[in-house]
Amino acid sequence: MSKYWSDAVTRLTPYVPGEQPKESGITKLNTNENPYPPSPKAAAVINNFDTDRLRLYSDPDCTQLKDAIADQFSVNRNNVFVGNGSDEVLAHTFAAFFRQEHPLLMPEFTYSFYPVYCDLFDIESKKIPLRDQFELNLDDYDQPNGGIIFANPNAPTSRAIELGDIEALAKRNTESVIVVDEAYVDFGASSAIELTQRYDNVLVIQTFSKSRSLAGMRVGYAIGHEDLIDGLERVKNSFNSYPLDMLAIESCVAAIQDNDYFAETNQKIINTREWTTEKLAELGFISLPSKTNFLFTSHRFLEAAELMGYLRSKKILVRYFSKPGIDNFLRITIGTQEEMELLVSTLEQHPDLFKMDAN
Amino acid sequence: MSKYWSDAVTRLTPYVPGEQPKESGITKLNTNENPYPPSPKAAAVINNFDTDRLRLYSDPDCTQLKDAIADQFSVNRNNVFVGNGSDEVLAHTFAAFFRQEHPLLMPEFTYSFYPVYCDLFDIESKKIPLRDQFELNLDDYDQPNGGIIFANPNAPTSRAIELGDIEALAKRNTESVIVVDEAYVDFGASSAIELTQRYDNVLVIQTFSKSRSLAGMRVGYAIGHEDLIDGLERVKNSFNSYPLDMLAIESCVAAIQDNDYFAETNQKIINTREWTTEKLAELGFISLPSKTNFLFTSHRFLEAAELMGYLRSKKILVRYFSKPGIDNFLRITIGTQEEMELLVSTLEQHPDLFKMDAN
Repeated sequence: MSKYWSDAVTRLTPYVPGEQPKESGITKLNTNENPYPPSPKAAAVINNFDTDRLRLYSDPDCTQLKDAIADQFSVNRNNVFVGNGSDEVLAHTFAAFFRQEHPLLMPEFTYSFYPVYCDLFDIESKKIPLRDQFELNLDDYDQPNGGIIFANPNAPTSRAIELGDIEALAKRNTESVIVVDEAYVDFGASSAIELTQRYDNVLVIQTFSKSRSLAGMRVGYAIGHEDLIDGLERVKNSFNSYPLDMLAIESCVAAIQDNDYFAETNQKIINTREWTTEKLAELGFISLPSKTNFLFTSHRFLEAAELMGYLRSKKILVRYFSKPGIDNFLRITIGTQEEMELLVSTLEQHPDLFKMDAN
Repeated sequence: MSKYWSDAVTRLTPYVPGEQPKESGITKLNTNENPYPPSPKAAAVINNFDTDRLRLYSDPDCTQLKDAIADQFSVNRNNVFVGNGSDEVLAHTFAAFFRQEHPLLMPEFTYSFYPVYCDLFDIESKKIPLRDQFELNLDDYDQPNGGIIFANPNAPTSRAIELGDIEALAKRNTESVIVVDEAYVDFGASSAIELTQRYDNVLVIQTFSKSRSLAGMRVGYAIGHEDLIDGLERVKNSFNSYPLDMLAIESCVAAIQDNDYFAETNQKIINTREWTTEKLAELGFISLPSKTNFLFTSHRFLEAAELMGYLRSKKILVRYFSKPGIDNFLRITIGTQEEMELLVSTLEQHPDLFKMDAN
């Protein structure tokens, strides 16, 4: 607190990212990172980079990367916006489209950065309850709004919705922008990118941090109608002309073109997720049906907060949100098969697990 | 223009960065980049980087880089803020401190991104005229204000002011933040960093883009009282948790520790600047006394706009601002000695230069 702060700064409640531990020997299943390294082609870009070029500014328009993304998804360059992680893309999205008369609608449980952006940009928001089993039902969004945002698959619930439901919403809700945050879409859900070609009110946001294994490189993007992209460019160019460095641009070009590697690592994660879901079920965990690289799970009788502490004492980090309604769930990232075997065997050694047989 | 934009987006006039040409064979003296490559130690970090680590998020607090900067300037880690280029640091600074009742004061001619941030964050600003020969005189800032920002040395004028003048202002102006944008300070001016240790209302912003030859890596930082840094962190953590990628963090740690290389390349630029100033004077140019890596210069009788076009036709890019008051000046980046010799010999071949003898 300082007399020099703008009033709005005092009111902010900043986002708290998952812990990035500095000690080694930790099994890190808390921030939904990919357990596999990035594409070897992206790695080669970095290790062979002509560093003398770094004396020059990077391309403020990131044309090379926009073209690679456009090619990948069969859209045009002017349908693509890129930013410093999908968090920055989201921030510009909130500023560009959601400062409206009516409130922004979002699910009651979703990415916890959304309400933070609302505070930052002074956007009124309305949280729409999820239905039974955390089901996101877009029929609940038929009400006056200045925008709609949800994650598909949703986080931390891991559940996905059908493309047909999003299309139906896009048809009904023509006066505001519908943002589909697809950070996890590549692990089993259907992308709404094709809808952006037919509906000028749908914006899809994706990231290189999850399915492309480049969380440490900070690149995200949005795909939508060129007028939406133009709005984002206007905000971006009033904030920071060059948000992506040369290495981020060029390593992501290589990563997005390496579809074989992408398919192979994603399939491994999906297989491990299904194995883990089954094993955890045998230990008394009930997991929501996941289309992501994490499980949202609660135990029949062991408390989530206690389980998080137990796992932490065994050097396994998982994410826990002490928020009413989800405070008996753990969000567990799908790591390598070996990491998940370690998770399962560690849980099997929990001193109170034997009680399960008594239930 | 789109019905989906927030009203404020329609009103924005985005910043237009200097051209980044894609063709080769261009002598690029238009965006004040360093003509020398970054420190070989920074280069080694990149080319030897263990890219498997990129699957993980980078450190959201950038502790390693903050510590390296703190060491370099003999301040504490909590006096240091880092961001995605000094442009992002500036954006957060405007949001954190300048949204006040009174207008922000800035020089009439200075970094042209400042008014853009004012538009973005709805900040009223007041431009203070420069004195004769574009002299920035801080006595002119003794008036009600919600903040003061200037560049030292100033851009595009290249002139520097004395530390004593900034200190005197800091003593008088105790109710708002004074931001000293030191993007060019290493080319001959005195940094106000020492003042930040004694005045809680002074914030200094620097960049790796100019004197550290890392424009392509996008890293800037601010140094000030911990309460100011805390304000910046609150805004940053409500906008984007991880603005710096791993390569940006670690290459800049190496760069800032390589003081020998830094001193050597800066001295070469200063020497070339002095040589160029003298040679241009012989050709009829009058340059302001520069403490930067560029010259702000006008010709005795040739028009700046025409000269820019002539140089462009010879594949030499310089920056020109078609703004009343400075529209007969060129801003010419100091390149290598060879590049400046090419500039001088190209100007010598200008068909109208012979007229000089007649004047």
